[in-house]
Amino acid sequence: MKNETLSLDLGPRSYPIDFGPGLIDTIGQRMKALNLRGQTAVVTNDTVAPLFLDRVRTALEGAGYSVLPILLPDGEVHKNFATLQQIFDALLTHRMERSTILIALGGGVIGDMTGFAASAFLRGVTFVQIPTTLLAQVDSSVGGKTGINHPLGKNMIGAFYQPRLVTCDLETLSTLPKREFLAGMAEVIKYGLIRDADFFRFLSEHLDAILDLKTGPLQKVVQTCCAIKAEVVSADEHERGQRALLNFGHTFGHAIESLTGYDQLLHGEAVAMGMVMAADLSRRMGWLGEEQWRATVSLLRRTGLPLTVPELEVAAFKDAFSRDKKVRDGRPRFVLLREIGHATVTSDIPEPLLSDLLRDHAQHRTIQGL
Amino acid sequence: MKNETLSLDLGPRSYPIDFGPGLIDTIGQRMKALNLRGQTAVVTNDTVAPLFLDRVRTALEGAGYSVLPILLPDGEVHKNFATLQQIFDALLTHRMERSTILIALGGGVIGDMTGFAASAFLRGVTFVQIPTTLLAQVDSSVGGKTGINHPLGKNMIGAFYQPRLVTCDLETLSTLPKREFLAGMAEVIKYGLIRDADFFRFLSEHLDAILDLKTGPLQKVVQTCCAIKAEVVSADEHERGQRALLNFGHTFGHAIESLTGYDQLLHGEAVAMGMVMAADLSRRMGWLGEEQWRATVSLLRRTGLPLTVPELEVAAFKDAFSRDKKVRDGRPRFVLLREIGHATVTSDIPEPLLSDLLRDHAQHRTIQGL
Repeated sequence: MKNETLSLDLGPRSYPIDFGPGLIDTIGQRMKALNLRGQTAVVTNDTVAPLFLDRVRTALEGAGYSVLPILLPDGEVHKNFATLQQIFDALLTHRMERSTILIALGGGVIGDMTGFAASAFLRGVTFVQIPTTLLAQVDSSVGGKTGINHPLGKNMIGAFYQPRLVTCDLETLSTLPKREFLAGMAEVIKYGLIRDADFFRFLSEHLDAILDLKTGPLQKVVQTCCAIKAEVVSADEHERGQRALLNFGHTFGHAIESLTGYDQLLHGEAVAMGMVMAADLSRRMGWLGEEQWRATVSLLRRTGLPLTVPELEVAAFKDAFSRDKKVRDGRPRFVLLREIGHATVTSDIPEPLLSDLLRDHAQHRTIQGL
Repeated sequence: MKNETLSLDLGPRSYPIDFGPGLIDTIGQRMKALNLRGQTAVVTNDTVAPLFLDRVRTALEGAGYSVLPILLPDGEVHKNFATLQQIFDALLTHRMERSTILIALGGGVIGDMTGFAASAFLRGVTFVQIPTTLLAQVDSSVGGKTGINHPLGKNMIGAFYQPRLVTCDLETLSTLPKREFLAGMAEVIKYGLIRDADFFRFLSEHLDAILDLKTGPLQKVVQTCCAIKAEVVSADEHERGQRALLNFGHTFGHAIESLTGYDQLLHGEAVAMGMVMAADLSRRMGWLGEEQWRATVSLLRRTGLPLTVPELEVAAFKDAFSRDKKVRDGRPRFVLLREIGHATVTSDIPEPLLSDLLRDHAQHRTIQGL
């Protein structure tokens, strides 16, 4: 495994995404080389801090940066206004200035909240991402979507705000609980399904090595996902078109998370269930062939992801859709598969088909191939 | 008085600023002509709503827009997270979508909060400003600065987020309490002081007509201020340079507001006091001549603005500076006058000069010419 760098191309706001083992120990030098000047505040949580905060602090101080650590409680259930305010309170209590560099050290929740805080603190300060989970490395840390949840829906409040640097230290993944790692794999498989049949095949063939955290395949996984995401985001930063394809499985998944109160399932687990539902809907629409439907389910199942949706009322499910950010004119929009490697957005789903799908999955009827 | 339009030039994000009497009755048609599509939510407060909400609603519905009114409590003291959340709660409870058009109907507080909500709701929806106070028409509604206060400082949290249309209906100014109108005049005089000696002269010569709300001079005042602001913002949207000049009087003014708890003084009143202090500091630096110092004080006094700073501790004053957004490396930055019509930014103030200034103003010593 060697250090590599991708660039997310957004003209003057382009930024590097670094990959490699042990990169957190050189984060200070890297930021200095990128000419990022100021005082840093490292936002992290009580799970990640004992693992990496000292190393990050040493690396930053060694390069001449002052460091204000801001510790938040861990978990999606804390991705809300109250926790966001803790960040602002800490920054203002310590008189941080416009030259502040906010560094997110942790998973997707930390990254999303820190990014939103960076966008809004003094109307915008420098933002750096150090994602320490697979999900954050392959998805949430790249592309500038930031935000918090509202009791009435996920990520309802936020900003498009790009970091100046994303550092994916692949060694951090070895500390992840298995369940967290697998949740990230849901997003990994998503990239194959929506965009890259070869990558889907690679995942199927090397799944055991990846799940064993073999360094070669793992780095290929993270880099491929980031390359796909960077390409999509650079073409459509504000999700006016193709960026919506990255939401494959998310309309169903967000509804499941919202209906289960954000505290039972990891985001990636809900997305895995959502992808099964979206793939099944694609099949029922006559788009996705039977064999590819089975291959999709098979890869998700072999990975060890939960595929059975919690038992939910169909009406509640529909109600949750209508609060989705992607709703247009009251109609939810779904990302469906034409085939593995090719997704498309539609709001044109016959009502009975959707109702049957929801009933079958959320009321645990027998589903062919699942 | 006839209808006129200025353009704030920001490339593809340029927008019109309309001036004229009775424009709120045609707001729906105007938005339609600009191709703004969606459902509207009109954010206003319990003071402004009885005056204009019905007319705005009629105009919008007449053009085919649905209208969700969102009423907030009135006052700077409510420009905070709790009130901001009321906007999000209302939008989500009513299942508003990405096509939402958030319309601010009111003064600076309503405009700043609505703009920030528009920037963050579903990561950004369309934003329209209908400023109904002089301060909002000449200053806060133009240029895209949005935000809320934090207990530790004013406008500490927010976004640069531009509206798609600003509608200055000059008739709304006739409903303003005198005190509110005068507070707006502080920002008006600011434009003359920092940028336009001719405009300063015009204000001195036509002050009575302006204070009598004579339509001709009043429209000239609002348009001139917006033209200056549009020019400055278009050259420096994110305040990396000359936009900071618009903060003349604001470093002192924000400190005064913060130390008096936001509930005694109107923003414009604090800015008037701050401009007196900044002009006095300019004089003590040997920059502003004695005659121009007296002319500055004279115009502010004739306008009827309060110029005497509340009695405050010098140490508390300095402490408040250090929390200002414009602090760099612990040093507050001041906008000072070289002469009337020409301002400059500096953080290079001899400490004894600043301490004397604060003592003289906040401890009510005799000040020559004041």
